[in-house]
Amino acid sequence: MWQSVQISLPPWIEDVAPPELIVDTLEERMRLVVQLANRNVEAETGGPFGAAIFETESGRLIAPGVNRVVPSNIPTAHAEVMAISIAGQMTGSFTLAAEGMPAAELVTSSEPCSMCFGAIPWSGVRKLVSGATAEDAEAIGFDEGPKPENWIQCLEERGIEVVAGFLAEEAGAALRAYGEGGYEVYNG
Amino acid sequence: MWQSVQISLPPWIEDVAPPELIVDTLEERMRLVVQLANRNVEAETGGPFGAAIFETESGRLIAPGVNRVVPSNIPTAHAEVMAISIAGQMTGSFTLAAEGMPAAELVTSSEPCSMCFGAIPWSGVRKLVSGATAEDAEAIGFDEGPKPENWIQCLEERGIEVVAGFLAEEAGAALRAYGEGGYEVYNG
Repeated sequence: MWQSVQISLPPWIEDVAPPELIVDTLEERMRLVVQLANRNVEAETGGPFGAAIFETESGRLIAPGVNRVVPSNIPTAHAEVMAISIAGQMTGSFTLAAEGMPAAELVTSSEPCSMCFGAIPWSGVRKLVSGATAEDAEAIGFDEGPKPENWIQCLEERGIEVVAGFLAEEAGAALRAYGEGGYEVYNG
Repeated sequence: MWQSVQISLPPWIEDVAPPELIVDTLEERMRLVVQLANRNVEAETGGPFGAAIFETESGRLIAPGVNRVVPSNIPTAHAEVMAISIAGQMTGSFTLAAEGMPAAELVTSSEPCSMCFGAIPWSGVRKLVSGATAEDAEAIGFDEGPKPENWIQCLEERGIEVVAGFLAEEAGAALRAYGEGGYEVYNG
């Protein structure tokens, strides 16, 4: 019998990012997703990547995500795909751009890989904010995949605002600590 | 409390694509995924897209997938992502290219969108075979997303063989029938 796709968030997630959390500023939102990435490594619950979707104006957390590739055996369980998928389930809408829904943004600790980049237009978020750069992730052995060279422009042409490299130094430091920790680096 | 990501295959899937099914030729593999797409529409269990991962040499079905975006409220639940995710769970490996695993191929009823394209390198499949073209999908209102123009070359440079437009006429006919049926066309 075929299994259903089932990917859980780690049990500690609600300590760091509980439902109904309000996070006011973009700096605090980025620091939260970097904290998710770090905690995911410390707890040995996945790779060094965190993401979250917020209502842009109110700062309400719609869904968090962390990388769950190795614990779930599912290569698509990147932090951004987790946040996007859980946001859909939590809101009961396959797009966050449905009529009457407040504008939402995806905040992610690292520049999205090719898959997560490609998922962003389907999510309905109106804004992407990323921290560490692709070079930071690649420097410790992660592969960002084949994104279009003009990926920022591709999103902006679809009405999605992009802020890349936001607090990149802090976000990159988390990745470098992971690289120096001798942890497993898989594809993605 | 945050939900887990949970996406089921439709209940009829094992009638068409049971575990341990062996499908010998590439033509039969493509016809199977087109049948998955058609059945998904008839049963009103998702969009007109089917996919499956096979062991290339033996023809053993590793995992099927169909589009489940609307029933699950999850925008990432495309047929290819479903097949890749279920293959990971069923094999207990986050990559089908792990040592000792037989070469696997992804067969999909339509050219992959930007997200599914980006997921293919992480899946570990060594070959992609797609049926209907992006133009077929776009002609009935689906959006393929921002893939690199040289997307086939991008995969081939990573050692993934690509056969695009295989039985495109048959696979495209299924999409056109969907377009003419007045069904919902969402983003993706």
